[in-house]
Amino acid sequence: MNAPTPSGKGAASRELILNRAYELAREDGLEGLSIGAVALHAGMSKSGVFAHFGSREHLQLALLEAVAARFLEFVKGPALREPRGLPRLRKIAERWSEWGRLHQQGCVLLSAAVEYDGRTGALHDCVLRQQADWRNELRRAIKLAVEVGHLRPDTDATQLAFEIYSLMLGLHHDGGLFGYEEARRLADIGLERLFASYRPVAAEEA
Amino acid sequence: MNAPTPSGKGAASRELILNRAYELAREDGLEGLSIGAVALHAGMSKSGVFAHFGSREHLQLALLEAVAARFLEFVKGPALREPRGLPRLRKIAERWSEWGRLHQQGCVLLSAAVEYDGRTGALHDCVLRQQADWRNELRRAIKLAVEVGHLRPDTDATQLAFEIYSLMLGLHHDGGLFGYEEARRLADIGLERLFASYRPVAAEEA
Repeated sequence: MNAPTPSGKGAASRELILNRAYELAREDGLEGLSIGAVALHAGMSKSGVFAHFGSREHLQLALLEAVAARFLEFVKGPALREPRGLPRLRKIAERWSEWGRLHQQGCVLLSAAVEYDGRTGALHDCVLRQQADWRNELRRAIKLAVEVGHLRPDTDATQLAFEIYSLMLGLHHDGGLFGYEEARRLADIGLERLFASYRPVAAEEA
Repeated sequence: MNAPTPSGKGAASRELILNRAYELAREDGLEGLSIGAVALHAGMSKSGVFAHFGSREHLQLALLEAVAARFLEFVKGPALREPRGLPRLRKIAERWSEWGRLHQQGCVLLSAAVEYDGRTGALHDCVLRQQADWRNELRRAIKLAVEVGHLRPDTDATQLAFEIYSLMLGLHHDGGLFGYEEARRLADIGLERLFASYRPVAAEEA
């Protein structure tokens, strides 16, 4: 018995709707999305969009999941091809910074965290899970760097993950306001200072 | 010759409108503000609100200036009563963190940075100036800490100000998503690690 799967055409128009919704959400956030505007932007009828997602909230949720999947593919994919330890952590930071450069005009994932952190409901739960999952990925990469001896054995992975995340928020904030290049320079120095402060005393360059 | 000043009653209703606008902007951001909603929330007519501010943009600008003045009074006021150097820097961080606790549901200044960083116009210019001014205040406090010997002479004030700002962004982000107390704990440890990494080798506790 096979579960029903979207036909090729159905999957393609679902993809088209999500791409158009993504363009709108980068400007106005997820809360600014309306089925009507997405339909107009995708050249479809409102009932056509409803047929694919059922409700505005389901469209917002599908969009959040699609963007998170893109982010992971963009950042984690290349990082996993690096050796464990600092090379992998540095690749995470590099790709994450590059994601920030490509989304200077607005990152849907980060905007969603601001939009939904104080609310309740399915979107809040989705944002919270995504953010917790990503923080866990960071902690995992940090723990591997401890295991291979690139970071001190007493490194607090939760603390370091918070500090890395904070620098990436600083990059996004300053990049949008004062220009990406200078913000990237400051964030890169901050990251290397951070890694250095957690390195074992006698560590060689990884 | 005296410049015309608002009468007591005029100033009071201007203040009332700004307070009501502030409550709305904390929920929906500055872009979500409408003269109609502010008038309704303040129990006034739309023409009454227009009479005070002239346009939606002027109301938004007046609100931004009012919130920035509150922030400075809340953070800088107490910090200036501390001795120069690390005690003053720590007081800035403490009051800033406390501001974050009081505005967990949304800080108009930070939301405005997200809303207007990619745009042009008077609101963008105002946000940019406010953010640059505050960063300059931080740099000034850092330079004083270098002068009194609490931080190393080669401390890069721009770099350290960016790193402090990043940790405060991390506090705001994590506080909204995962709870303020744990976020505050991580940010406090991050700040002390940061200060320690910039301290002169032989420095005593300030």
